[in-house]
Formats: sequence, structure tokens, C-alpha cells
Amino acid sequence: MEKTMKAVVYKGKGEVALEDRPMPMLEQDTDVIVKVTLSSICSSDLHIKHGAVPRAKEDTVLGHEFVGVITEAGAGVRKFKVGDRVSVNVESFCGECYFCKRGYVNNCIHGGWELGCRIDGGQAEFARIPMADQALTLIPEDVTDEAALFNGDILATGYWAAQVADLKPADTVVVLGAGPTGMCTLMSIRLYSPAKVIVVDVSEERLKLAKEQGLADVTLNANTADIEAEVLKLTEGRGADRVFEVAGTMGTFEMAWKVARPNAIVVVVALYEEAVSIPLHQMYGKNLTFVTGGVDANSCEEIMTMVQNGKIDTGCLITHKRPLNDVMEGYHVFENRLDGVIKWVITPYER
Amino acid sequence: MEKTMKAVVYKGKGEVALEDRPMPMLEQDTDVIVKVTLSSICSSDLHIKHGAVPRAKEDTVLGHEFVGVITEAGAGVRKFKVGDRVSVNVESFCGECYFCKRGYVNNCIHGGWELGCRIDGGQAEFARIPMADQALTLIPEDVTDEAALFNGDILATGYWAAQVADLKPADTVVVLGAGPTGMCTLMSIRLYSPAKVIVVDVSEERLKLAKEQGLADVTLNANTADIEAEVLKLTEGRGADRVFEVAGTMGTFEMAWKVARPNAIVVVVALYEEAVSIPLHQMYGKNLTFVTGGVDANSCEEIMTMVQNGKIDTGCLITHKRPLNDVMEGYHVFENRLDGVIKWVITPYER
Amino acid sequence: MEKTMKAVVYKGKGEVALEDRPMPMLEQDTDVIVKVTLSSICSSDLHIKHGAVPRAKEDTVLGHEFVGVITEAGAGVRKFKVGDRVSVNVESFCGECYFCKRGYVNNCIHGGWELGCRIDGGQAEFARIPMADQALTLIPEDVTDEAALFNGDILATGYWAAQVADLKPADTVVVLGAGPTGMCTLMSIRLYSPAKVIVVDVSEERLKLAKEQGLADVTLNANTADIEAEVLKLTEGRGADRVFEVAGTMGTFEMAWKVARPNAIVVVVALYEEAVSIPLHQMYGKNLTFVTGGVDANSCEEIMTMVQNGKIDTGCLITHKRPLNDVMEGYHVFENRLDGVIKWVITPYER
Amino acid sequence: MEKTMKAVVYKGKGEVALEDRPMPMLEQDTDVIVKVTLSSICSSDLHIKHGAVPRAKEDTVLGHEFVGVITEAGAGVRKFKVGDRVSVNVESFCGECYFCKRGYVNNCIHGGWELGCRIDGGQAEFARIPMADQALTLIPEDVTDEAALFNGDILATGYWAAQVADLKPADTVVVLGAGPTGMCTLMSIRLYSPAKVIVVDVSEERLKLAKEQGLADVTLNANTADIEAEVLKLTEGRGADRVFEVAGTMGTFEMAWKVARPNAIVVVVALYEEAVSIPLHQMYGKNLTFVTGGVDANSCEEIMTMVQNGKIDTGCLITHKRPLNDVMEGYHVFENRLDGVIKWVITPYER
Repeated sequence: MEKTMKAVVYKGKGEVALEDRPMPMLEQDTDVIVKVTLSSICSSDLHIKHGAVPRAKEDTVLGHEFVGVITEAGAGVRKFKVGDRVSVNVESFCGECYFCKRGYVNNCIHGGWELGCRIDGGQAEFARIPMADQALTLIPEDVTDEAALFNGDILATGYWAAQVADLKPADTVVVLGAGPTGMCTLMSIRLYSPAKVIVVDVSEERLKLAKEQGLADVTLNANTADIEAEVLKLTEGRGADRVFEVAGTMGTFEMAWKVARPNAIVVVVALYEEAVSIPLHQMYGKNLTFVTGGVDANSCEEIMTMVQNGKIDTGCLITHKRPLNDVMEGYHVFENRLDGVIKWVITPYER
Repeated sequence: MEKTMKAVVYKGKGEVALEDRPMPMLEQDTDVIVKVTLSSICSSDLHIKHGAVPRAKEDTVLGHEFVGVITEAGAGVRKFKVGDRVSVNVESFCGECYFCKRGYVNNCIHGGWELGCRIDGGQAEFARIPMADQALTLIPEDVTDEAALFNGDILATGYWAAQVADLKPADTVVVLGAGPTGMCTLMSIRLYSPAKVIVVDVSEERLKLAKEQGLADVTLNANTADIEAEVLKLTEGRGADRVFEVAGTMGTFEMAWKVARPNAIVVVVALYEEAVSIPLHQMYGKNLTFVTGGVDANSCEEIMTMVQNGKIDTGCLITHKRPLNDVMEGYHVFENRLDGVIKWVITPYER
Repeated sequence: MEKTMKAVVYKGKGEVALEDRPMPMLEQDTDVIVKVTLSSICSSDLHIKHGAVPRAKEDTVLGHEFVGVITEAGAGVRKFKVGDRVSVNVESFCGECYFCKRGYVNNCIHGGWELGCRIDGGQAEFARIPMADQALTLIPEDVTDEAALFNGDILATGYWAAQVADLKPADTVVVLGAGPTGMCTLMSIRLYSPAKVIVVDVSEERLKLAKEQGLADVTLNANTADIEAEVLKLTEGRGADRVFEVAGTMGTFEMAWKVARPNAIVVVVALYEEAVSIPLHQMYGKNLTFVTGGVDANSCEEIMTMVQNGKIDTGCLITHKRPLNDVMEGYHVFENRLDGVIKWVITPYER
Repeated sequence: MEKTMKAVVYKGKGEVALEDRPMPMLEQDTDVIVKVTLSSICSSDLHIKHGAVPRAKEDTVLGHEFVGVITEAGAGVRKFKVGDRVSVNVESFCGECYFCKRGYVNNCIHGGWELGCRIDGGQAEFARIPMADQALTLIPEDVTDEAALFNGDILATGYWAAQVADLKPADTVVVLGAGPTGMCTLMSIRLYSPAKVIVVDVSEERLKLAKEQGLADVTLNANTADIEAEVLKLTEGRGADRVFEVAGTMGTFEMAWKVARPNAIVVVVALYEEAVSIPLHQMYGKNLTFVTGGVDANSCEEIMTMVQNGKIDTGCLITHKRPLNDVMEGYHVFENRLDGVIKWVITPYER
């Protein structure tokens, strides 16, 4: 009799279900099997559910942000062994191709976003992880599962965003969007000590949290404030030195380049669902640089170090923590932003 | 009796005329008067004529790319004196404001593109140059007027573009557009010795020139070739490391990001006449950096050095050279790209 | 009758005295006169006293680290006015020469370290400040004199050192020397959030202070520990990513490159009194970069911003605060490192 | 009967001999055997002969700069196959350790300079190459052995030097030493188009070659000219923007920092035989950056591209080309710089 486990499955546009699935097994000798101890629901899971991720495959187990313990390891795995507690990178990559060799692991010709998208992911009791030597980060003993959970996805994204922005002390920074990725971006920005951080959102609750966590010097509610005017006022009429767009709408994209001072860097972190319009003739001479992209799996070890020494602490993002049994409720709450949810975290299935 | 001179005047949308105008006089003590010895028609002059430059003022003398000899200098001018042969920067700037101090002279709060746009320019016998200490570059004795002519505008633009692209030996570079600014960009790119330069245009004549001048390793005609497919073929399927968009259409903007490899830098040099659409969701994970902007008046002295020592030679761009008397013919030829024109250059009015 | 004031005068090698001196007067129209409200004794004053600063002139009033209020301003001063509370840069510079234009203001052909070295400085009741528009930083209302005092010298030095080190989160950093400049370097390093900071000194008191202020993760006493062995132990055998030499002896210079990992950056901040030996053949293949230099007056405004928003607080360095009347005692205490002195600060003369 | 070959063997301080040696065989499955088609004598071979390379082992076959054809390949070799024509890197490295992962392959914990120093090298008929996937660069069909010969050692060194110097168009550059590595440095510098290159040597012959090859704008003979004075004269009194020390004596080290302008970068490329003295107190405030190091095996593929497309051509360095039979004469000529030798190149043994 085949052994089964519980898992969240993408059934096609609009439908996600908790089902029984066969236990994963090693396929390549560079694979490991991980017993999932903590996973999360991410807005990218909703993008898949909405049918907005063309590369996603039906009947795949969802979940690309998770931690666990290795229960089996292929013979070709060199850096990890059974019993290791690990966080998993959202991106799979070989570490050897043209792009990997140059550090562009997102563009690995053998990988990319696979887990929870094209191959079975981590909203399950167990998961198979391919190319494990590149895919995992060891969790130090003194770091909890909760503290390590976001390492491989939203925190890696925020960390990348802060890194490419060439931040300097004395910069004024605007962050559009204080959701989970926005908060991770803010935590990473803080490592560079910019003089003034202005956070924009439409949720008073999220703005309040950013302020309480010491991540915002100024908060602005886009529902009530004239953001462009306020930012100019806060920057002696110049605009912000660095802007992070973590909201992902046409309106926030436009806001991003409008609140930027001439010669600013605008980091476009958000995942959009449609094309935006960019009036280059209106911004001619403004000499803006737009950096686009997302999660960078190169820095996961470095990020773990920052978590371990307390310089980054994502604990405040976990507003809900419930067993896999309740995951459908989690999807409902997360999708509709009920109950002040920031991150819905999933503990193992309880029998 | 007031002395007059001949000058090309912007009469309002669609109309440009050669007229008699009063001779310019010093207004501020940091002004100089320059007797124009050589000027040119630039595609930005056409943008003004078409009514596509909102900041342009009617009844202004056109011309922002010219060289000449100083005939009068205000008491506050420290770096130049009567008799100096100089090239003129298209941008006016104070050198002291927040932006100037950081090198963003394009965004000077007291300047910007003024000459030939909002104040009288150089398609005339004489021109008044404000803030002259910042506005001029001395022409060394062994550099001709012809060689120095493009220093302050299209060559400064091409030089800036190459500079911000972080070019490395061994890069494969695509340049879209081999017009005057495209050629200046190519000449500047060559200073960084990229391994392979691919030039794209729709004019066989221009592509041929780029090749003859040793500026192109490969040329592609966008009318006949599938540019994206060809670039992929030339880069082992990856795309170009650096892309320069010097054509300025929706089609070439799209081509620019499509021929770029993941993690490439795309420099948007062209001046557009309308908004472009940027499908960030389609290029998600491609991690492109877009650098936008234009002429940088900071490097004009440096560029003059490169011209002097023969590392940059724009001589091949001058296809037509005629006195101011014939300038209306020049506008006609340049606007309609007749007679193989690249640059129409204007010598002094002949009486 | 000429008005006089009290001032500390360098009388020649070995001798410093508190004397009556004529009040300073404006000499150039770009000068200001500052009423000194707070000044300090710096180890560079001791270097002068020891005859180890060849450019220093006898009979000059000492003091190059001070704040005050402008009491007179020349007609050519544009950025400051009588009544402004300002901190003074140790370096004088014109802002216009080849070096100044490129940001190398230390090497201004019209300036350099003048105040308290070649022209009368700030250990006095009043001081004349040349090229005032470049020499001063306005102190915001909510910043005290104490907080602003080190802005123009040791803090500018520490800030420069951290800036040139290309610090990254996750770096392990070694700082040799926890004296006043070492502490300012540590405060500036913290802005870049390196993962581990190891501080080395021979004074338990200073090491304790660095730890208490949250500036050191690990402290090592060079009198009792094998520094090279300890650093290797703390870095899995590799050595430190970044090393700051702020002690200034042959021994610490050698320690600096020995504790550095291959391809590290070693910032040599200290002012030495004699040549050091550098065995390049022993470190061949280690590929070290040595950055040498010191105070950078370019960043003084930026530093003031960091002081104002609380990201840098040098308050703990002021161990002694006494009127100018007692300055000779100050020199004695500071030179002999008595009484736990870090910084001896001088308030106005009391009559 | 064991097969033997001819090889140059280091017999201990002062002695080198052409001997019969057993043919090399595969030892690890990542090894290849290369039939050497061209090798060279390098000044590092002389350093070994002089006993100045402590890591060198007696009874080792010399030679670390060579090209050849693969005759056997271990089962673990993935990138190369029997019959491939390859150039060999002087450095052996694993590609996987902490340093390799960060691009510091020189400091590989499993490698470093092994070939011709600690394990048998390429002045022989055959050589065993360990960790072959990292150690070799494929030679394109249209590149000759001669053109590829220096790829892995002196050209990689010169290329590294130019790369770390942050060269910009308009820089004035001084290169001290126009020997083989100096020439390779000059060829690499030219890729960045600095405005003025000043070459210093004591050999008129070498200076003449640098000039003829278009690598020097100005040449200075250190035997007859006052180098510091001349460089100041050529730079309006400022000193050079970038200095490359490729001569390796106490005198040239001192010359290097003296001819540098304030805030210059000094690249120390040479291999010294003893410690140099560095009077930091004399250069205080000059804010120099010293970059030390040497060959960088990371760029070998990139360099091969530059050789292939004709941007680097080291042909002029080969002044002598003789079979392995005459190698002892080669050592004599090269060591004593007879007969205008720059590079003595060794073709296969003739029977």
C-alpha cells in the first residue's frame, strides 16, 4: 500500500484543495526529501490560483516558502545530510551554467521557480528538493524555524532589493507597500542606515506596524495623503534618493517615478499582473535608473547570518500560525486580508 | 541704429524661419557673447518644430550645438576670455546647487536645456551664453571647429551612455539606431573595447558607414532581419550584455529589452515623443536594469581630450556643410533624410 | 588699545602655552570670525607638539576640532551669516580647483590642513575661518554643541574610513585601536551593519566602552591575546573581510595585513610617525587592497544628518569637559592617558 | 619498460637541468594529460631557480605557461575531451571552496600556484593537469598556439591589473617596467582607452617596442630621466591618475607612489624578492590606494575572446622560438637578458 500525505494542490484556475498525495521519493541523486516543519502562504500562491502565472502547472502541490528536516539524501548531495534542519530557496538552480557562474541564479538554464509552481512544493508534509546543494540553507541551532522561514523567498527578495539600490547613509528612501515583502525590504534597507525612510500604504494597520518596528521614520496613507506632494515636502522639493515599488499596480508604478528625485534609483520589486505605461518623454532629463527583478538565492547564507545575529527579525510578520488541517481557511483569510493577516504560517498536519 | 544679425527662429508649431534679429548683448556679468563659427541642425530642433518640446518658447533662436569665438565676456567670467575658441554645452547650469554639486548638472535648478529652446541659441551669427564658466569647453589649438562641434550635445550624450552602461571587455553590445547620436554612442562604446558590437538600423547607408568606421562588428537591417532571433544566434542563445536604444520608437523600446540577456543593462538614450508600454510581468525574473537620460555636460573637457588625442573622431558625420544662408534647405534635407544626410553643418552667413 | 583673547599657542618642539593673543579679524571677504563655544584636544595636537608635523608653524594657535557661533562674516560669504551656529572642518579648501572639483578636497591646491597647524586655530576664544563657505557645517537647532563637536575631524575621519571600505552586511571586521578616532570609525562602521565586529586595543577600559556602546561583538586585548590566532579562530580560519588600522604603529600595521583574509580591504586610518615595512613577497597572492588617507570634509553635512537623527552619537567620548583656563592640565592628562581620558573638551575661558 | 620524456627539472637552489623523466599518468579522475605544443620561460622560473620561492619543491618539472593538446582525460572531466587544444592556467583551483565561490581562485584552499612549482609543469613533452575543468581554456580554431600561449599567466596578470585599476578614458597612466608582464599590462590597459600612457624602463629597446606597438604615448628611460619630474610635467603638476608597478624593486615601488597624484590607484603587479619600506607619514593625506596581487585565472575565457577578436595580440613578445633541446641556452639568454630577448618560447623536443 502506497504511503500518502496531506498536501495543498493547485487544481486549475480558481481552485486549490487540500488532498491526499503520494509521498515524494528521491528521483535524482542530487535530490533530498524534506519533512516540512513550517511553511507559509505567499501572494505568489494567489497569483497561481488566479491563473496569472503561465509557467505554473495544474495538479502541482503549492508552497515555495518553507523549512524542514532532511529525511533522505541522494548519493550526490555533498553539503547536506539526513537530520539537517534547512530552509528552502524558492529558486532551483544548477550552480554551473553560464548564468549561475555569473551569479544570475534566477536565470539558471536548468532551473528557475520550480517548487510549488511546476514541481511539487512545501504546503505538504514532505517535499522533494532537486539540486539540493544549491537549494538549501542550513539553519543554525540558535535560529528557530519561525525566524528562518522567510529566508528563501520574501526575505531574499527584500534583501536583493536593498542590495541593488546602492543605498547610502543620508539617503531618503520611499517604500511603496508595507505588505510582507515590503516589510522584508524595509528590514533589509535598515541595514544600510538611510537617514529617512518614508513608508506608503493604504492600510493604517500595516503603516502602524512599520512604525512600531522602527522601520519607518514617516508613514503616509495613500488613501488620504497626496503622496507626491508629501514626499517633495519631506525632501526640500527634490524627491527621494531611492524608491522601492513593492505594491505592483499601475498607480504605484507611476507614483514611484514621480516621487523619485532626478538621478534616483527606482527598484521595481513587485510582481505585476499587467503591462505598465512609462512616459519616457515626460521624465526625459530626469535620468532615472530602474532596476527590475526579484528574489536572489545567492545571498541566503548571508541572510541567515543576519537573522542569527539579530540584525533581521521577521517574527512580527507571523500573525497566524495553524496546522495544515486549516490551510483552506488560511487561503480565505490571506486572500481577503481578513483579521489583520500579514503572514499565515502552516504547522504540520495533526492527526 | 540697432545692429542686427541673421538667425533661425522658431515661429511656433510647424514653422521655422531665417530672420533678422538684434545682436545679443551681455545681460549678467557671468555671460559671454560668442561669434558662432560652426553650428548644426539637430533632431531636437525638429522635435521643437513639431511642437513636441513643451518647454520650448516661440520666437526663440534655435541651435544648441555650436562652436565659436568669444567676443565679449562679463566681469564675473573667470575661466574664459575674449578670443578663446570654445564649444558650447547644450545644458546651462550653475555649478553650485544641490544637483550640480552631486554632478547632476542636467537637473540644475537654475538651468537645464535653455539655449536654442527657451533662450536664443546658436543657429545665428552671435549668441549670448549665460553662466559661461560652466557652459563652455576650450578648444585646443590642434583641434578643428569641425572636430569640436558635437562635443556639447550629441557626443556628450553618446559618451554619457557608454559611461553609465558599465561596459566590460568581452561584452556583446547591441546599438539600436545608427543616426548621429547612435554613431556618437558607438564611438564612445569603442573606448571600452567590448568584444562584439551589433548595430541595428533600417538604413543600409548608415549601417555601411558604421561598419566602415570600424564601429560595428555585425550590422542588422531591421527591415529585413528578425533582430531578436539574430541577436540570440550571435550570443549562444542568451541575448546581449548591454543594449543602447538610440532610435526612440515603441518598436525599438520593445526590441531593446527583448534582445537583452537576463541581468543586462539597457540604456535608453533616445528622446521619445510618446509613452511606451513596459510589460514587467513578461520580463519578471529577467532582472533588467534600465538607465534613462541623456546629455551629460560634466564630461565635456574629458571628451575634448579624447577628440584631441584622436580616440574619438566625428568627422565622418558631417555630410553637408553650407552657409547660414542655406539653412532652410538644410532643415528640409535633414527632416526628410534626403541625400544621405547625417549631419547638416552651418558655416557663417555670407554677405 | 588692541583687544586680546586667550589662546593655546605652539611655541616650538615640545612646548605649548596658554597666552594672550590679539583678537582675529577678517582678512579676505570669504572669511568669517567664529566665537568658539567648544573645542577639543586631538592627538594631532600632540603630533605637532612632538615636532612630528613638518608643515606646522611655530607661534600658531592650536586647535582644529571646534564649534562656535559666527560673529562676523565677509561680504563674499554666501552660505552662512552672523549668528549661525557651526562646526568647523579641519581641512580648508577652495571648492574650485582640479582636486576639489573631483571631491579630493584634502588635496586642494589652496588649502589642506591649515587651522591649528599653519594658521591660528580654535583652542582660543575666537578664530578666523578662511574660505568659510566650504569650511563650515550648520548645526541644526536640535543638535547640541557636544554632539556636533567631532563632526569636522575625527568623526569625518571615521566616516571616510567606513565609506572607502566597501562594507557589506555579513562582513567580519577588525578594528585595531579603540581610541577617539577608532571609536568614531566604529560608530561609522555600524551604519553598514557588518555581521561581526572585532575590536583590538591594549586598554581594557576602552575595550569595555566599545562593548558597552554596542560597537564591538568581540573585544581582544593585544597585551594578552594572540590576535592573529584569535581572528583566524573567529573566521573559520580565513581572516577578516575588512581591517581598519587606527593605532599607528609598525606592530599594528603588520597585524592589520596578517589578520586580513585574502582579497580583503585594509584601511589605514592612523597617522604614523615613521615608515613601515611591507613584505609584499610574503603577502604575494593574498591580493590585499590598502586604502590610505584620512579626514574627508566632503561628508560633513551628511554626517551632521546622521548625528541629528541619532544614528551616530559621540557623547560617550567626552570624558572631560573644562574651561580654557585648565587647558594645560588637559594636555597633560590627554598626553599621558590619565584618568581614563578619551576626549578632553574645552569650554570658553572663564573670567 | 617505463616510457620517458624530456623535461626541465629544478634541482635545488641555483640548478636547473634538462633530464629524462617518466611520462605523467592520470592520478585523479578530474585530471587530464596534455601533450605540450608550446611553452615558455618565465621570470618566475628564475625566482624558483634563485631559491626565492619558498613553496617551490626540488625535483619538480618547471614551466607554468604552456599550451597543448589533451591526450587523456579522467572520467570526472566534464568540459574537455581528448583532442582539445587548450591553454593552461598557472593557478590550480577547485571552483567550490569559500574563496573560489567568491572569485578569489588564487586563494583556493586546495590549489594555488602548483604547476611547475610544487607539481610537475609544462617545460616537458607531457604534463598532468589536475582539476582540469577549472585549469584549462579551450583555444578556438582560429587562434594559434603562439597567440594563446600567455593566456594563463602573464596575460592573465596584465589583464587583472588593468581590471582592478578602475581605468577611465582621460586618465593618465604610468607603467613602470616594459618587460613581458609590463607589455601584457599595457595591452590590457589599452582596452580602456586612457588618454595618455607613460611607459618607464631602463631598456631603450623595450621602450621602443612599447612605442612601436602603439602601447605608449610617452616613454621615459629611468637611467637618464628624472621620472618624478617628468611625470609631473606631463600632468600639469598633479601626478598620474593610475600607476602600475611591474618592475619589482624598492626603487620602483617608491617611484610608483611618488609619481601618483593624490587619490590615485597604484597597482602593485610585480613579484618582489624582499620587503619594501612605505613611509605612510610622508604620504599622509595623499589618500593613495594600493592594490596588490597578480594573475587572476577567472578571466581566461574572456581574455581568449579578446585574443580571438584581435583586441589583444602578444605576438611581438616572442623574440625566440626554439625546441626543448635548446632550453638550457634559453635559460642563459633569458636570465642575462641577452640578444634582445623578451620571451623565449619552447617548441617540442626534436629527436
